[in-house]
Amino acid sequence: MKEEKANSDFPAVPLTLEGSYILHQMFRVRWSAWKAATSVEQKLALEEATASLEEMEKSGQEQSAIFSLVGHKGDLMILHFRRTLDELNHSELRVANLKLAEFLEQTTSYLSVVELGLYEVSVRLYATLKEKGIQPGGPEWNQAVEAELAKQRKAAAPRLWPEIPPRRYVCFYPMDKMRGETKNWYQLPMTDRQRLMREHGVIGRRYAGQVTQIISGSIGFDDWEWGVDLFADDPLVFKKLVYEMRFDEASAVYGQFGAFYTGLRFPAAKLGTLLEGQTPTFT
Amino acid sequence: MKEEKANSDFPAVPLTLEGSYILHQMFRVRWSAWKAATSVEQKLALEEATASLEEMEKSGQEQSAIFSLVGHKGDLMILHFRRTLDELNHSELRVANLKLAEFLEQTTSYLSVVELGLYEVSVRLYATLKEKGIQPGGPEWNQAVEAELAKQRKAAAPRLWPEIPPRRYVCFYPMDKMRGETKNWYQLPMTDRQRLMREHGVIGRRYAGQVTQIISGSIGFDDWEWGVDLFADDPLVFKKLVYEMRFDEASAVYGQFGAFYTGLRFPAAKLGTLLEGQTPTFT
Amino acid sequence: MKEEKANSDFPAVPLTLEGSYILHQMFRVRWSAWKAATSVEQKLALEEATASLEEMEKSGQEQSAIFSLVGHKGDLMILHFRRTLDELNHSELRVANLKLAEFLEQTTSYLSVVELGLYEVSVRLYATLKEKGIQPGGPEWNQAVEAELAKQRKAAAPRLWPEIPPRRYVCFYPMDKMRGETKNWYQLPMTDRQRLMREHGVIGRRYAGQVTQIISGSIGFDDWEWGVDLFADDPLVFKKLVYEMRFDEASAVYGQFGAFYTGLRFPAAKLGTLLEGQTPTFT
Amino acid sequence: MKEEKANSDFPAVPLTLEGSYILHQMFRVRWSAWKAATSVEQKLALEEATASLEEMEKSGQEQSAIFSLVGHKGDLMILHFRRTLDELNHSELRVANLKLAEFLEQTTSYLSVVELGLYEVSVRLYATLKEKGIQPGGPEWNQAVEAELAKQRKAAAPRLWPEIPPRRYVCFYPMDKMRGETKNWYQLPMTDRQRLMREHGVIGRRYAGQVTQIISGSIGFDDWEWGVDLFADDPLVFKKLVYEMRFDEASAVYGQFGAFYTGLRFPAAKLGTLLEGQTPTFT
Amino acid sequence: MKEEKANSDFPAVPLTLEGSYILHQMFRVRWSAWKAATSVEQKLALEEATASLEEMEKSGQEQSAIFSLVGHKGDLMILHFRRTLDELNHSELRVANLKLAEFLEQTTSYLSVVELGLYEVSVRLYATLKEKGIQPGGPEWNQAVEAELAKQRKAAAPRLWPEIPPRRYVCFYPMDKMRGETKNWYQLPMTDRQRLMREHGVIGRRYAGQVTQIISGSIGFDDWEWGVDLFADDPLVFKKLVYEMRFDEASAVYGQFGAFYTGLRFPAAKLGTLLEGQTPTFT
Repeated sequence: MKEEKANSDFPAVPLTLEGSYILHQMFRVRWSAWKAATSVEQKLALEEATASLEEMEKSGQEQSAIFSLVGHKGDLMILHFRRTLDELNHSELRVANLKLAEFLEQTTSYLSVVELGLYEVSVRLYATLKEKGIQPGGPEWNQAVEAELAKQRKAAAPRLWPEIPPRRYVCFYPMDKMRGETKNWYQLPMTDRQRLMREHGVIGRRYAGQVTQIISGSIGFDDWEWGVDLFADDPLVFKKLVYEMRFDEASAVYGQFGAFYTGLRFPAAKLGTLLEGQTPTFT
Repeated sequence: MKEEKANSDFPAVPLTLEGSYILHQMFRVRWSAWKAATSVEQKLALEEATASLEEMEKSGQEQSAIFSLVGHKGDLMILHFRRTLDELNHSELRVANLKLAEFLEQTTSYLSVVELGLYEVSVRLYATLKEKGIQPGGPEWNQAVEAELAKQRKAAAPRLWPEIPPRRYVCFYPMDKMRGETKNWYQLPMTDRQRLMREHGVIGRRYAGQVTQIISGSIGFDDWEWGVDLFADDPLVFKKLVYEMRFDEASAVYGQFGAFYTGLRFPAAKLGTLLEGQTPTFT
Repeated sequence: MKEEKANSDFPAVPLTLEGSYILHQMFRVRWSAWKAATSVEQKLALEEATASLEEMEKSGQEQSAIFSLVGHKGDLMILHFRRTLDELNHSELRVANLKLAEFLEQTTSYLSVVELGLYEVSVRLYATLKEKGIQPGGPEWNQAVEAELAKQRKAAAPRLWPEIPPRRYVCFYPMDKMRGETKNWYQLPMTDRQRLMREHGVIGRRYAGQVTQIISGSIGFDDWEWGVDLFADDPLVFKKLVYEMRFDEASAVYGQFGAFYTGLRFPAAKLGTLLEGQTPTFT
Repeated sequence: MKEEKANSDFPAVPLTLEGSYILHQMFRVRWSAWKAATSVEQKLALEEATASLEEMEKSGQEQSAIFSLVGHKGDLMILHFRRTLDELNHSELRVANLKLAEFLEQTTSYLSVVELGLYEVSVRLYATLKEKGIQPGGPEWNQAVEAELAKQRKAAAPRLWPEIPPRRYVCFYPMDKMRGETKNWYQLPMTDRQRLMREHGVIGRRYAGQVTQIISGSIGFDDWEWGVDLFADDPLVFKKLVYEMRFDEASAVYGQFGAFYTGLRFPAAKLGTLLEGQTPTFT
Repeated sequence: MKEEKANSDFPAVPLTLEGSYILHQMFRVRWSAWKAATSVEQKLALEEATASLEEMEKSGQEQSAIFSLVGHKGDLMILHFRRTLDELNHSELRVANLKLAEFLEQTTSYLSVVELGLYEVSVRLYATLKEKGIQPGGPEWNQAVEAELAKQRKAAAPRLWPEIPPRRYVCFYPMDKMRGETKNWYQLPMTDRQRLMREHGVIGRRYAGQVTQIISGSIGFDDWEWGVDLFADDPLVFKKLVYEMRFDEASAVYGQFGAFYTGLRFPAAKLGTLLEGQTPTFT
């Protein structure tokens, strides 16, 4: 694929829609401190945390969920979906002020916002406007874009403000698009990027029944450009899907991946099971 | 764009103006220690810190501001603008000697100085001087440069010694310009860099009402070449702006980005709210 | 070798079989704490850990094994093979809740799943189906693939659910396949990858008597794409084998390697010997 | 610039002169511990440290100097110049055994030796010897080289065994010369390197009155190839100089830079001022 | 130099001989804890450590040696040469169980095995066998290789199982051979590698009287491919040698270097001197 300046014909930037603000929080349990605590301290900490997290679990579009992580990167992941950045910040402060926080050590986190990339819509709209001789960036152009975005936003509302998919396993990783000296995603013409994203999407759709995917954007928020959350009932599907995608051009050439986190979801009500040293069941 | 030796015609280095010295300080709250402190200790630490930070907030051109950070990179960011490096060093020592410092752990920091890059001015001036047959680096040349800088410095004073923009959200990240084996910003002719920076600026200006941007230079001071601070009333604008810029050639090909920090500004008077586990309001 | 788009003729993704979930856990012994413990505390911690680890050692297809690691990366490695991710998570929680865990500090870990890559089978099958004019990804294709996988899975069962090879020395390292700007494994035609993997396998087979190799896939699970475990009776063989392989094209050009861990296996019953400061014998 | 094998005509290695061994030591003050100490403990630690550091400050060619660092990389930098590596090691042990060391945490350090690179001299000498038909590396050649070095060493003595320049501000950073796949400093012909270093030097000389520069070599001693110390009365000069140099070919293409440390020098006698939370004055 | 597939004519892998297993252990002294210990505790810890390390110093082909390191990377390096990996593991466990270990913090380590690379021998032998029409990898070939290795091993025994060279200064660093997208050591024809290693060796031999070099292989054992130990009476020689080598093609193009450690050897009997805060003398 020839790489050339992308902004030849119409704007290089695809339209996007944004929804919930997301914070992934990863924690290690300070097992020594936990085991050294009295049973009263444990009880109080557990009751308070369970109550607080259960409340967050149930709050619809501002939901949280907890996961038991596998490996040294963390024992616990708390995933927050919120309407605003303020609410997200409030949630992490709330977690930090739980008695249980005394027994947790935050290892990392990731801040992003649910994003729907509209490559198909963008190319269609830009082409139409261009045919009509409308000037990119001018008032008429911007009005048409805003109208289209409003329409799309309405249609996509459930995907913009989703509940956290109720599946047992989660796979989270951040990613960038390559900006190398010869392979540079951001220098590809938009129609090439559209084609690559479409091919990429085809693979995703083949796994539709097995995996629920939530893409979030983090450009301007955190250290990578996107976050990817996969939710499945069988963790092998993560490997199958990510491996297959690695061969599509969008990933093979342009995908740069950060650390992978693998977890098992469980209801806040079973936090005590984890702290007793057993994997809590899903339901 | 063809990359060739930049110093063909006239000096490769654009003129710059410098203003306030800036220090970004990121801290984690040591929640365990804070919660273990007596209410008297908390009160004393909070009163002293609030008084000290409020004083810094109000001191005009040597202002400080505080932010609640989202994610594990920190809970608190203190941003200092000062007239001199000595004053900046003094401010960090002052923070380190607050009673509250006992409950903070500094995770990182960034040292820079407000910078206005004068690509347009430089190219115009260099061209004029060259037409007059004046020798680059000679006394006449230097005199003309100094005169121009003095004129520009006077005009730009408010932007060189700015107050910290009073908006709710901040996005801070450091960046470099690419020096790869084939793509090397510092090997581009100045007129190409001028053009790229102008295109880059065009995007920025479209967001002018929504974002206040402060660029600071850190070559010779810290590990990246520049620091970027964006201030906005809606954090989504950070994503929109940084994403759109990623497609312009100056960023797509030549921008290298460090860690991103996202915060919510609040008045020092509300530091106690944060320490009680709630996101303080902006005003 | 010319690199071109891989998905020209038939699917780019080779068939794979998956078996046991694997977790490598690396620990440092907190020697100071251990030495400071009373002999009663030591005895209780050791007895409990030995009993628990011995049970895991003996449990057939869900086996664990322990190793004394050389160097600062860890003193102890516990290797778990399990039927499910839930069981793997349960095992690490069980270890974390041993009294001995008080004297251990986890330095790192690695999550993967036993993988048999079927390049030969895939190319043969894909070619046959193609000859028959069957459409890749269609129902007939998928049915044929599933039938083949089922057949292979049955034949390979002992290698998919292996016991941990009973040899004295272990060498573990994670690895990726190169995705550079000009050398990109995932852009090679499948028949080229097949040939490279075959050449790679030839070297491995020459060491067959001296080394038992277990390859596990970690795409979608952990930070590298594969984990490699080598088990031998003479550690020099690790160096010979890995050095020789570094010259084959699959490794020389496309292999990217992470950290290497070298350990000596010993029975859980001899954990006390290690904690007394002596290398336990193998049997 | 064409890159070809450097050792075509005469030796690729430029002559160098070495002088003082240098150790940069960066420390964080453990403010909590310091503030928790009794005033008697503080007094004893401060008196001992001040006496010891003042003695080191005054010892001519084996001088030390202390700096208040800006930012989280450290609060204090102690810079040692010594005649031998043994003396350098002795100095760090002496610092480690101060009572004050209890209140310091060493964050990093850098080991190097004052180096004068003699590109001009080397090219001139090698050319002369070659014209005379003398064989590189033969006895006659070596004798001529030794004679030249002895002569240069004598002339350069004050620069080889310098005192630490008595200016308020310091900027320290380590650097490498690029060894990329197409741009490789060590593959350039010596005459090209000579030309690049000369151009580089021209910039440096223009700042001669404002900056005192000490280059030290660390190949074979520490993780980068060189250390650069800049001393100035105005810290803005660091930015101006390093930015301007970034455009010369030696830096733009071949310079690779490590972390930057910025500090304010003060006399050991004022160490107490720093520990009271104020930036000490220069004199 | 043209890079092509190495295994055109005969095996790409050069013959090597292996000898002593080596472990480098780097430690920081926990000065605070040491100074806080009672003089009785210090005496007991010192006597035990001295006795143990003196015994290791004297044990011929399974020798250990200790060094005072310069800089923050460590205060103490213990270097172990052993006949087997088991003995090496035993030695580190022995060190970990010294009372002195309470006052040490291991910062890093390196595991490798003494290696003699036989490029000259390999090319000569392979060429001879090829001339005779013997098939690489066949029984006759292997027999000839084994015979040659046995002969070489006997001749090289003193270099395979060396004592630790009794010189004052040590320089240790790990290294890799480049595997870039266009410059790839492992893709060079063996005769090119042979020539480059010969040129590299010529430089080394010129320093023969001043430096004793021990190369150890760590492919399959630790994170880099080789470890290099240089021992000298004058530390400046490390800089001269490593700088000169950086210009030879084997290093300039293909050498990738890790961290450098610089130390001063001293007899275990003088460990107390170090712990009193003085650099121990060599003898």
